[in-house]
Amino acid sequence: MSNVLNEVLLANRGYAASFDKGDLPMPPGRRFAILTCMDARLDPAKYAGLSEGDAHVIRNAGGRASDDAIRSLVISYKLLGTREWFVIHHTDCGMETFTDDIMRGLLASSLKTASVDEHGWHDCCEGPGSAEANHISWLTIKDQAQSVLEDVQRIKAHPLVPSDIPVYGYIYDVKSGRLIEVPEATAAGK
Amino acid sequence: MSNVLNEVLLANRGYAASFDKGDLPMPPGRRFAILTCMDARLDPAKYAGLSEGDAHVIRNAGGRASDDAIRSLVISYKLLGTREWFVIHHTDCGMETFTDDIMRGLLASSLKTASVDEHGWHDCCEGPGSAEANHISWLTIKDQAQSVLEDVQRIKAHPLVPSDIPVYGYIYDVKSGRLIEVPEATAAGK
Repeated sequence: MSNVLNEVLLANRGYAASFDKGDLPMPPGRRFAILTCMDARLDPAKYAGLSEGDAHVIRNAGGRASDDAIRSLVISYKLLGTREWFVIHHTDCGMETFTDDIMRGLLASSLKTASVDEHGWHDCCEGPGSAEANHISWLTIKDQAQSVLEDVQRIKAHPLVPSDIPVYGYIYDVKSGRLIEVPEATAAGK
Repeated sequence: MSNVLNEVLLANRGYAASFDKGDLPMPPGRRFAILTCMDARLDPAKYAGLSEGDAHVIRNAGGRASDDAIRSLVISYKLLGTREWFVIHHTDCGMETFTDDIMRGLLASSLKTASVDEHGWHDCCEGPGSAEANHISWLTIKDQAQSVLEDVQRIKAHPLVPSDIPVYGYIYDVKSGRLIEVPEATAAGK
């Protein structure tokens, strides 16, 4: 068994040993949802003060309002009763370090891990690549405030999103742990 | 300001006041990623023993291997160096309570929140609906072990996923807090 798998299962055993949340209902108790980035430095339960049962948390590369994130948000509202949503991107995001063209070039030359230095991204090795990446929009980010605003606007404009649901736009600062409002996004989300 | 927004910002101020993780690097320190459900009862950092900086966490309705989840996983591996992945669905998932047809019917009659009882889902109210839902696959689930297996297989078969990355399949039990292996999925993921 891999070390990681072993460590995860051991940690889970510890969590389950003192688990006392077995009677929570399915709908989120505090009736809101957060869309944020998969970044390892972000712990939405900690940075937003969530306990088990409180809120839906949707995460992907960048915290982007992808079709799949909107699928999840619509289910969250329509079937599980959330009433307010947050879009939270963050400083120093990996999605700012590349473009669709860079990703397509890297994946065309090899599927293996690339590395980055001050000159940009480089493929580490020879190997089979794939042109499949050419058909994917990687949803990269140029400017965090702009990406938060765009995603809030995309969510609000979606035909399956009710017009009266507030969507708040914030940036999480990985240096300080603080949430910083994107005022234009929050205003657009109301 | 809404109560929820106020509470989230207050909790964040408390988190930031004692924040000491400002120097963590962007790539996940423990080099793995978890794909799991947005369900409010799940706290992946707690159930899998993660600290800030350890691992990528991707979440959507059901923890499904959607195109967007695979976009995130490929970025996680190719640019940020994760080496092992988990697919973790859970018991009592909302995605088991409806089908594409039910969701399409509900959204066609109204965008507002529906309710469920022993006879199934009902729309609560009159209102504008939308046929947009007819073009979306909602990625519902009939059987958790089967959905974990399908998602592990979809990830492993994807042309942008290297063949040597292990993908472990588990179900989180919301009653006990325990992770339960789906052995066929874990075996298929190796």
